Amino acid sequence: MYRVLRERRDVRSGYLPRTLENTTLCRLLDAAHSAPSVGLMQPWRFIVVRDPAQRARVHEVFLHANQTAAIGYANERSELYGRLKLEGLLEAPQHLCVVCEATSEQGHGLGRRSMPETSTYSVVCAIQNLWLAARAEGIGVGWVSIVDPHAIKDLLRIPPGAELVAYLSIGYVEEFAESPDLERAGWEVRASLASVLRSEYFNSPYLPEEDGQ
Amino acid sequence: MYRVLRERRDVRSGYLPRTLENTTLCRLLDAAHSAPSVGLMQPWRFIVVRDPAQRARVHEVFLHANQTAAIGYANERSELYGRLKLEGLLEAPQHLCVVCEATSEQGHGLGRRSMPETSTYSVVCAIQNLWLAARAEGIGVGWVSIVDPHAIKDLLRIPPGAELVAYLSIGYVEEFAESPDLERAGWEVRASLASVLRSEYFNSPYLPEEDGQ
Repeated sequence: MYRVLRERRDVRSGYLPRTLENTTLCRLLDAAHSAPSVGLMQPWRFIVVRDPAQRARVHEVFLHANQTAAIGYANERSELYGRLKLEGLLEAPQHLCVVCEATSEQGHGLGRRSMPETSTYSVVCAIQNLWLAARAEGIGVGWVSIVDPHAIKDLLRIPPGAELVAYLSIGYVEEFAESPDLERAGWEVRASLASVLRSEYFNSPYLPEEDGQ
Repeated sequence: MYRVLRERRDVRSGYLPRTLENTTLCRLLDAAHSAPSVGLMQPWRFIVVRDPAQRARVHEVFLHANQTAAIGYANERSELYGRLKLEGLLEAPQHLCVVCEATSEQGHGLGRRSMPETSTYSVVCAIQNLWLAARAEGIGVGWVSIVDPHAIKDLLRIPPGAELVAYLSIGYVEEFAESPDLERAGWEVRASLASVLRSEYFNSPYLPEEDGQ
């Protein structure tokens, strides 16, 4: 379990042409479907995209958003950005578009009066379940956020009331990298655990229980 | 791995008074810290709340939000809602407040120009990692969304620029239920996997690869 958590990667290259068997894909989707959801709402919807023409259109949507994003960087960082491989949409034989149907009455609104955003968060929990199950099966998943959500919704005929949460590439891969792509490319380094922990208040450093109150 | 995914529960009762050892808690937090994040941003911040007085104040925040939520239900559903046990905030010896620091420059904004909400989603992935690691260790986690986020932010001195994503109770528990609390209480039934799957378009039923294109 801990090994899967540690060795999961965001895979943007090295996808193999071999299509996922239906039983395997459904095992991953079932892992997603066992995620927690606010009020037992289960608002996640999974659209499996296999059509090569449609995958190419999604790739175009990425290219457009990536061009816009690239403009935001200057000098060395701009050059570095240009060298990054940020998606594997053409190589991966299937995509998974993950949608939140927050208008669903399932769950009778429990837990969402105070924090309505938890319906979307339930969908993210499902994605992480799928990501981990995939890693355990030796299957790569890449989350592509460099897309215009409205363009994707148009392509996949997602109604206005449903929310695009994630667009994923998924498939068998050559290998899993030992560390995140962005770390190896010199884009960012991983923060220490200590730097994200606090005790009692947002600005108080973390104290182990023995030393704490 | 699949067993952990299947047997994870949202635990709102049966917390034991035994405090989590620091090494155990840090193992869970490290599992969270190994989650994927947009641009390797790692925007999650974890506040461990142990002070009994503070935990009691958070419980008051829940009671207030729960009263408001209860008003929204009528007749049998209102009675059913009143019987639900929706939090274990006083019993659990520690809470975990999970915050997104989206103003952080870590990650240099990669992937967030087109979908800025992915910083929050990264934090949710971290929560799900922690939830699964906890289940593997026999530790219960409960996500309490029936709270006013602003009231919690005030109590924990979370600055306006940081976002409250989740408030969790965490601790050793008597047992893990075989099925979700809300299902056993008759609040909602779980949907079938087939009902959340689609092929190619949002409104097209799922077809296995063999029958699809």
